Amino acid sequence: MAEHGGLHIMCLNKLDCHSSPTLSSSSEQEKEIFTKLKVSLTEDYPQKNAEILSGQYGTNLLLIGVSLMLAIGNNGASVKEEHLMSFITTLIIVQLLWMMWYIVRRGMQSNLQAEKDVHATTSWIKGGLTLLALLSLIMDAFHIGYFVGYRACLSAVLVVYPIIHATHTIAQVHFLWFHIKDVIKSFETFERFGVIHAVFTNLLLWCSGVMSEANHLLNHHNTRLSALGFENLTMVDMEPHCNCTISACSMFINGLYYLYPFNIEYHIFVSVMLFVMWKNIGRTIDLQHNRKRLATRTQGLVVGPILGLAALASTIGVLVVYIIHVEESLDIRESTIAVFYYYGIVMLVLMCSAGVTGLLIYRADPMPMDTTKNPSRKLDTELLFGTSVGSWLVSWCSVVAVSASRSSPSYRWTNLMYSLLSILEKYIQNLFIIESLYRQREDGEREDTEVAGPAPEIFSVTSSLSPPYNGIINQAYENPDNGCVTLENEQESGQVNGCPRKHLEVPLQVENNVEVTPSKKSQILKNITIFLFMCNISLWILPAFGCRPQYDNGLEEETFGFTIWTTVLNFAMPITLFYRMHSVACLFEVFRRV
Amino acid sequence: MAEHGGLHIMCLNKLDCHSSPTLSSSSEQEKEIFTKLKVSLTEDYPQKNAEILSGQYGTNLLLIGVSLMLAIGNNGASVKEEHLMSFITTLIIVQLLWMMWYIVRRGMQSNLQAEKDVHATTSWIKGGLTLLALLSLIMDAFHIGYFVGYRACLSAVLVVYPIIHATHTIAQVHFLWFHIKDVIKSFETFERFGVIHAVFTNLLLWCSGVMSEANHLLNHHNTRLSALGFENLTMVDMEPHCNCTISACSMFINGLYYLYPFNIEYHIFVSVMLFVMWKNIGRTIDLQHNRKRLATRTQGLVVGPILGLAALASTIGVLVVYIIHVEESLDIRESTIAVFYYYGIVMLVLMCSAGVTGLLIYRADPMPMDTTKNPSRKLDTELLFGTSVGSWLVSWCSVVAVSASRSSPSYRWTNLMYSLLSILEKYIQNLFIIESLYRQREDGEREDTEVAGPAPEIFSVTSSLSPPYNGIINQAYENPDNGCVTLENEQESGQVNGCPRKHLEVPLQVENNVEVTPSKKSQILKNITIFLFMCNISLWILPAFGCRPQYDNGLEEETFGFTIWTTVLNFAMPITLFYRMHSVACLFEVFRRV
Repeated sequence: MAEHGGLHIMCLNKLDCHSSPTLSSSSEQEKEIFTKLKVSLTEDYPQKNAEILSGQYGTNLLLIGVSLMLAIGNNGASVKEEHLMSFITTLIIVQLLWMMWYIVRRGMQSNLQAEKDVHATTSWIKGGLTLLALLSLIMDAFHIGYFVGYRACLSAVLVVYPIIHATHTIAQVHFLWFHIKDVIKSFETFERFGVIHAVFTNLLLWCSGVMSEANHLLNHHNTRLSALGFENLTMVDMEPHCNCTISACSMFINGLYYLYPFNIEYHIFVSVMLFVMWKNIGRTIDLQHNRKRLATRTQGLVVGPILGLAALASTIGVLVVYIIHVEESLDIRESTIAVFYYYGIVMLVLMCSAGVTGLLIYRADPMPMDTTKNPSRKLDTELLFGTSVGSWLVSWCSVVAVSASRSSPSYRWTNLMYSLLSILEKYIQNLFIIESLYRQREDGEREDTEVAGPAPEIFSVTSSLSPPYNGIINQAYENPDNGCVTLENEQESGQVNGCPRKHLEVPLQVENNVEVTPSKKSQILKNITIFLFMCNISLWILPAFGCRPQYDNGLEEETFGFTIWTTVLNFAMPITLFYRMHSVACLFEVFRRV
Repeated sequence: MAEHGGLHIMCLNKLDCHSSPTLSSSSEQEKEIFTKLKVSLTEDYPQKNAEILSGQYGTNLLLIGVSLMLAIGNNGASVKEEHLMSFITTLIIVQLLWMMWYIVRRGMQSNLQAEKDVHATTSWIKGGLTLLALLSLIMDAFHIGYFVGYRACLSAVLVVYPIIHATHTIAQVHFLWFHIKDVIKSFETFERFGVIHAVFTNLLLWCSGVMSEANHLLNHHNTRLSALGFENLTMVDMEPHCNCTISACSMFINGLYYLYPFNIEYHIFVSVMLFVMWKNIGRTIDLQHNRKRLATRTQGLVVGPILGLAALASTIGVLVVYIIHVEESLDIRESTIAVFYYYGIVMLVLMCSAGVTGLLIYRADPMPMDTTKNPSRKLDTELLFGTSVGSWLVSWCSVVAVSASRSSPSYRWTNLMYSLLSILEKYIQNLFIIESLYRQREDGEREDTEVAGPAPEIFSVTSSLSPPYNGIINQAYENPDNGCVTLENEQESGQVNGCPRKHLEVPLQVENNVEVTPSKKSQILKNITIFLFMCNISLWILPAFGCRPQYDNGLEEETFGFTIWTTVLNFAMPITLFYRMHSVACLFEVFRRV
């Protein structure tokens, strides 16, 4: 009977199904099968498959773009920059159409309370993104200016492109401000294609930015080498074959050089945010775990900011010295590179110590890990880990080169130290950031006991005394008769555990008996985080603005050869830049949590 | 009081902690913190961090190896093959020590009932792996023979290495046979390092195999080009500088060429299996979902095997024709390549139709998706998707090359068709395999109702009539008052849902009333699967044994240039080979499920 009821409900929806569930004639059976086929093709495609379907579509878009870029890389082939730009422009227009459709449809459904994923983004990320978008818009303006200057000899696609790109930037920022947290629940399969299209359009724009940047760098590097008389390379002719008709041309060209990194960061950031939106499609959000109050306390913040500012100041000093002196004679060049390495070693040693201190504080203060589902955080973790690989590869290559090199410039062993420290620093920093993001927030518990006053230290010390509850699965501690321990893996595998979460109540009983002091640990952690935050900004500024000793020191080039080494660098440098920027974002999140 | 109890239990374990939980003197407090620090450093490290800690360690091992390989790639540098081999040998010895330690410790604890993950592997995977391992052992024997022949002028490392490698292979196969399903629950952090060390040692061996293979191919390609008078490339001298003292030298060299692909597959397979073991460390296995009976019914298997065997036979024919004729004059060469493309188009069209038919059957027969946690299946899916990228890149490059090419050989447009079909075929096949792996097994439900007889078709037809239960999250169908629907995302996020799973019972009530026919759909699916299985073997055989028209047709080389195109191929070819082999494994699994 239950079955009949189900069928009737279905019939009301579909209008063309049969009244009897038991079928005998084969023609009717066929008809039913085709009806169902039609229904399931148009409406309910299983989620897993829809993900694969759209994911494969997006990947192929990117690959078409990459293969066009590879063809352009081979100068003199019949594939030209214009072809790539037309392809990207098409993708952008499709994305604009989809966004318009989405916004209009949402507007019409505004009476519905849309579900939101509060973890998807924060207002400071949106702010940062808007800043990057503004810089991208300036870049587009420069591109247009450049075209106006050289309009006699440039293809018209080159002016259409920046205009489209600027429109895209404005529309996309609007979309991100008002819709990035949406959890899509209707037209799921279609929306999945729309979102993944947006993700991969941005990724392709990122790739194209990286390619331009790499070309630019390579040319700059070659110019410098020829000026120094090192090599006699055939240079790619990037300048148009006519004279500039306006006075600001050189300003545009130089400005573009400094604006590119921001445009690159903008696109990768957007694609990461859209990817989180894609992962959220059709998700059921657990409303209980929604936004907890984030009180950013700033008391006791002295050492961290001061050291951080000192690091930032010295970075700018080193940058200026480097850029001025590295193009001079061989001796000065060598000592400039040596200065960079000494500075880097000091920075990295300080950063390693800060990270280790943070980890030791965590070890002294065990706390259960927060295992609620949060695609945004999971992606943060994976990106941090994944993008370290680029920088590690460069560092290990340097280590191999230093060990194998036959020549011995003054910076040989400092380069070795610098590379090893740079590996270690990322190793430690990743551990610190990931543990910080996954620790259960003290704020969450404190909300329940605000009468008792803030006592995070006491809370954490006491909670550390109850071994089975600190989020670790350790059989030695576990009492096999006790089935009521909520462990990380049980939660992840979706097992049902009906036991009350006792461990949160235990420490609260003690709190009232103990004298309360302001949380020292939290203060130390905040200082560490702000210091690491500024150091990461510093280490982002250096390569972004042209201080890249890996291109200049010659040691690696000797061991790996020019082609292999520049390929490695062109692959790894943008990833390293992204790693630093992403660490900055993550450390800001950590700062708000500790 | 509960707090005191917790502390006392802790004291019994640690023997050196204080009796009072409320501390006043700061020295005592410090002492306590250090004790806790020691405890948490040695014993209970949070799972998430231990994963990151060991994952980063493994990644760095691989990167050291890769940077050594890059240095070797630049001929004439001071880094030699011997350095890489010493590094790999060290890693292998460390892995051997760890495996020995693990086996001995397990042996001593044999009274304990160890938890096993039954999804981790199957006996036929073990069998296939043993076969690959045997071929690897033969390869080692050939290497030793080669060294004996040229012992006058080869470094002794070159003979130590195959001996160590053979020992490693034997020990590892033993380990995989008896321990790969273990779920490790003690010394977790240490074991995590051990397993990940094994994973990345195998990955490095895979990389090194791929590099040798690529070098070999490149040399072969260059030899052929020079023989045809196409180009005048400086060739790398791979031969030793002395004469062979035994008669079998050329047999060894030719044999190695055919044995390399198997060794490469062996190592990537092992690392995937060990990675699943690593993911399982500390996991709590849901015993309810353990092994379901797998009855491989073979009735009605006619069309699939026959078509598959025909595909295999024609493949071998094409392979022989290709290898014999491609090195001849330009005309014959061109028609040989054209023959290959015609053959490929027919194969791919058939495979696409088979895949589409399978997907249509699934659409006509909706069934809830199986969302239980299963790292092995998740990894299968990701590998399938990830490794398609290599082949898609090559195909898109071909499309770009054909569109842009100025020359027009006879196979220009067949190449375009072939490339587009090859993209489409992987797109469809991935969808088919992934949906097959994720669909809930009919067997599972049938176990509960064996008295009612096998009625999978009726079961699935009826279950398709109850929309909210087919594994899709579709708000339009969902009744918001009904909190008892177990949806995929709720299960994944570990939410507690105490409602009984009604949807399994609904169809069972109808089953007894309906006439039963043998499942036609399942038979069609089995035929499709076996056909795809054999086609994938065919498409693996061709490139593995030297039929690689991408190297020979010249179109892509014209557009991308020699360097870029060979780099793309050297990156993509081993991945494509792995994709085909992995599809074969997945399709076998699918065959057992449908």
